[in-house]
Amino acid sequence: MTDRCPAMLSDRFNTLYFDAEREAVQLLDRRCYPFSTEFVSCRTLEETARAIESMVVQGGPPLAYAAGLGLVLHALQGAARPVAEQRARMQEAGRRLAATRPTADDLHHVLRDALRAGEAALDSGAAAGTAVLDYVNSEIERGNQVSRRCGRHAADLLRDGDRILTHCIAGAALAWMLWLAKRQGKALHLFATETRPYLQGARLTTATARELDVPCTLITDAMPAFLMQQGRVDRFICAADRIALDGHISNKVGTYQIALAARRHGVPFHVLGYDGPDADTQSGDDIPIEERAADELFIARGVDPESGAQARVRITVNGVDGYYPAFDITPPDFITAIVTDRGVFPPDEIGSYFL
Amino acid sequence: MTDRCPAMLSDRFNTLYFDAEREAVQLLDRRCYPFSTEFVSCRTLEETARAIESMVVQGGPPLAYAAGLGLVLHALQGAARPVAEQRARMQEAGRRLAATRPTADDLHHVLRDALRAGEAALDSGAAAGTAVLDYVNSEIERGNQVSRRCGRHAADLLRDGDRILTHCIAGAALAWMLWLAKRQGKALHLFATETRPYLQGARLTTATARELDVPCTLITDAMPAFLMQQGRVDRFICAADRIALDGHISNKVGTYQIALAARRHGVPFHVLGYDGPDADTQSGDDIPIEERAADELFIARGVDPESGAQARVRITVNGVDGYYPAFDITPPDFITAIVTDRGVFPPDEIGSYFL
Repeated sequence: MTDRCPAMLSDRFNTLYFDAEREAVQLLDRRCYPFSTEFVSCRTLEETARAIESMVVQGGPPLAYAAGLGLVLHALQGAARPVAEQRARMQEAGRRLAATRPTADDLHHVLRDALRAGEAALDSGAAAGTAVLDYVNSEIERGNQVSRRCGRHAADLLRDGDRILTHCIAGAALAWMLWLAKRQGKALHLFATETRPYLQGARLTTATARELDVPCTLITDAMPAFLMQQGRVDRFICAADRIALDGHISNKVGTYQIALAARRHGVPFHVLGYDGPDADTQSGDDIPIEERAADELFIARGVDPESGAQARVRITVNGVDGYYPAFDITPPDFITAIVTDRGVFPPDEIGSYFL
Repeated sequence: MTDRCPAMLSDRFNTLYFDAEREAVQLLDRRCYPFSTEFVSCRTLEETARAIESMVVQGGPPLAYAAGLGLVLHALQGAARPVAEQRARMQEAGRRLAATRPTADDLHHVLRDALRAGEAALDSGAAAGTAVLDYVNSEIERGNQVSRRCGRHAADLLRDGDRILTHCIAGAALAWMLWLAKRQGKALHLFATETRPYLQGARLTTATARELDVPCTLITDAMPAFLMQQGRVDRFICAADRIALDGHISNKVGTYQIALAARRHGVPFHVLGYDGPDADTQSGDDIPIEERAADELFIARGVDPESGAQARVRITVNGVDGYYPAFDITPPDFITAIVTDRGVFPPDEIGSYFL
């Protein structure tokens, strides 16, 4: 399997990288892709952290890689300082980056290992920035391989003719799953929830389906149960921002209520679990749910229907309150299986991923 | 109880009426209210029908009244013709108006009785238009009373401190319920789903809550189950576009999946049932679900965040398919009770409304 999946999001190097010439972290702006393919150029640690916080980059692994590259930038910019100061700056930078998004576990693993790589370099008199960059690039490459293998195991589960409901954007593994299943001769149909407020489903999932020539139908976040009631959905498949050792998963808010509907209607629910559970997270209660600014709910982004120029609308009047938990928790008893790079696990046996 | 509820939507005469001077049906444009309070002036039957189809007026009773007023307009404009021709034109107009929106039953009742009133007038040598107008105005007044009584029964069910989740806009009875419960000294908190694609919750429900000074928090359509999982919701209350004699209800798509979540989390689900079930609809299978143009999903309406001018964005790229069922069906076993103007009924006993 040496082929490349042609979807933009299947290879993380397409969407984020360290630009040595400009000394900048380049991040595909997922808030406007695929309306436009623009990269946000982050020239400082703080710019990188704010890009992560403001949803320029989204998804557990991508935002973790972006944070890692932010650490690279910061280390390079401090390379002339005394070693003790470089250490202190790196630790501080790690704390700043770790505070950007609390729910997904990848961020913490990547930062921990990136800091270790930087420390080890300093210990041996080498440049921390280069060592951290080497580590982050190898981690992106590893993540790409994980996505491909996870996508392959998921593709093997699919049947010809499957109508798959998905929520938000399930990332590189979704792209690989669709691509490999197509190559297995399976005809698929995707239903994508629009996924308010950032509309990742309406933009990123539909774009991925279009690149792979998989028929895709957009629905609102209110429609999954009705589709299942009508017998129009064969499977529900989404990603997870964090998987606990007891099989609870966190994913984009809305996943839980789709899982409830799937159970009611006997629709299998498979989680694209990439590289498995977080070894440090025992149960769903241990997963922090990020609460984002209510203002984000009040805006819908897109393009002007006439000119195609980027545009935003405010959907409610001033003085209204909002509540925006970005993720929710689905218990293992609502999950059919978690598909990882190491194979398919019943949710209550996901701890054996590490065996 | 002679007080007036101060909410705009509590009295249908605030939002639609026959304008004799201009010979027009005036309809509050619910697509942009409360950003702006604009009336669409319909000067022909066809303009009225298209206003109903294009969501200028929404909600079972209001769109039925609008249709009735369209019939008034058409009858007045044909009053100089031979009686036989007037009859034929009225019948044809009734068919045109009945075809605008299939799901709610009010449309069919109002048109049937409006046509009868017009026929009876012609039989006795009187003007059909005037007779139809008298009937429609009396029906709007009756509907206002039904809303008030339904709202009163619902208010009686509420407890001080209740946190109520609602979906879409539950209309005049919701306004009365909130108003009367407040007068009973009950503090309430409303959670409103935004209700894509037309965002009735984000605009109409929040506006109603604001007029009545009831604290209201906006959420996306993906969040109800998560709120319930967190124990943040005491009741789910919404309206119904049609109630079958076996207790199935149809309402804005998304209601069913909220009902599933409510069952899972032991949250009571009360339906604001206004004047009860449709005597001609035996079961949920007999309720036609309107499928609207997929293009409607691709647009979010609101205002420009800077200028406040009305604006629209397209949320997905060209070439994407969409599916837009406007309603869904919730079975009686997911409903705690249906609250009508005649009292509170267990869903499987709603047929006794007529006894």
